Amino acid sequence: MSAISLVPLAGLPAVHEGHDLAALLTTAAREAGIELREGVLVVCQKIVSKAEGRVVALASVEPSPQALAIAREHERDPRHMEVVLREATRIVRRGNGVLICETRHGFVCANAGVDLSNANEADQAILLPEDPDASAARLRESLLAGGAGPLGVIVSDTFGRPWREGLVDVALGCAGLTPIDDRRGGRDWSGRPLEVTATATVDQLAAAAGLLMPKDAGIPAVWVSGVAPWGEGRLAETLRDPETDLFR
Amino acid sequence: MSAISLVPLAGLPAVHEGHDLAALLTTAAREAGIELREGVLVVCQKIVSKAEGRVVALASVEPSPQALAIAREHERDPRHMEVVLREATRIVRRGNGVLICETRHGFVCANAGVDLSNANEADQAILLPEDPDASAARLRESLLAGGAGPLGVIVSDTFGRPWREGLVDVALGCAGLTPIDDRRGGRDWSGRPLEVTATATVDQLAAAAGLLMPKDAGIPAVWVSGVAPWGEGRLAETLRDPETDLFR
Repeated sequence: MSAISLVPLAGLPAVHEGHDLAALLTTAAREAGIELREGVLVVCQKIVSKAEGRVVALASVEPSPQALAIAREHERDPRHMEVVLREATRIVRRGNGVLICETRHGFVCANAGVDLSNANEADQAILLPEDPDASAARLRESLLAGGAGPLGVIVSDTFGRPWREGLVDVALGCAGLTPIDDRRGGRDWSGRPLEVTATATVDQLAAAAGLLMPKDAGIPAVWVSGVAPWGEGRLAETLRDPETDLFR
Repeated sequence: MSAISLVPLAGLPAVHEGHDLAALLTTAAREAGIELREGVLVVCQKIVSKAEGRVVALASVEPSPQALAIAREHERDPRHMEVVLREATRIVRRGNGVLICETRHGFVCANAGVDLSNANEADQAILLPEDPDASAARLRESLLAGGAGPLGVIVSDTFGRPWREGLVDVALGCAGLTPIDDRRGGRDWSGRPLEVTATATVDQLAAAAGLLMPKDAGIPAVWVSGVAPWGEGRLAETLRDPETDLFR
């Protein structure tokens, strides 16, 4: 294995609905001296959602009685809680001021991924993309059409985890790469057959890029070179089947 | 933020109890042209455990009736299951051929971290280090004494996650760095106060290094430069308090 490098893409303007993300990222890459070729572009969910218009002005939201009750209990904005409930298919856990939800995509995360930070304006909620795999695929197609590639694209977000403190970046969607590196059937260095060795490369890439994307740094994308996880998988395939998930 | 680079350290010999890991890693770094200065060395748990003698010959293990029952049910080696039960304080979930345990350290992982792959000999089980923070601290002290530094050290392992397929590398122990980058009280790029933004830098580093450490590659350590999470935290501090953990 040879070295991997991670380079931040900074200097993007505030992203609004209808903006051409591929063009903005291509410009940012050029200014950083990066050729978007043979690597993976990790893009934070927030600018993808903004470009797709997945933004709700809280002033337009009428909280339901359930949202009002949850907001009261957890000292939150009831309009925020209303948007969370609309995005959630299920409340998985509730307590300590945290609402862990399952989203329509099948993600399990705080507030169904609905976030008030890094919005363009006060009192705006940013929702997850409708279909983050499709978002990644569209962005990748536009980048390829603009002369980039071959490359993979990951749309990432920061999620909390059970049992351990602190958020870690994970992938919400991907295109042009194999999300899971499945070496079951392979052998370890001593020749013993490997039993359970399917690595979530896509999440390792998202976590690596997250090192350069603290929420107060204004860095919405990171270019990862030295990796070649080429393939055509979708992130959605890596969500556990609820039937066999021991933690539903 | 500037770029981050990840470089694999290969070519270590098979590690046995009593080996001087710091000396082996220093040699591997020199051969890779790396100066162990101003970066983080991520070392896989397995070579740390081997150097510390945390290895059990299965031939010496007498399975208890509970281990025999679990092994029968899940089609596993009863001696392996016996070692797992000895390392576990609690079985968290059981099903689909998987035994999710809480370890004495407070980690929640498959088989209490007891693994049969990448052992030096057949029919050996490798246990997690007794105190991975202490392991990291000892290794760091030896590296500093040998002329390296300043640097951080992480002992990592691959764990599965609820809800998502695929393993991801996480930290078991650390030294010389702050495991959680807590920006609560800070502001986002638009000036809005950040609510819940404590990032598990230590796990992002472990996951990033994991990209270069697939289990069949024989790469037991990765040098990460371009990061400066200096501090004196312990990984153990980042395990959630069971009292407030919604997923115990």
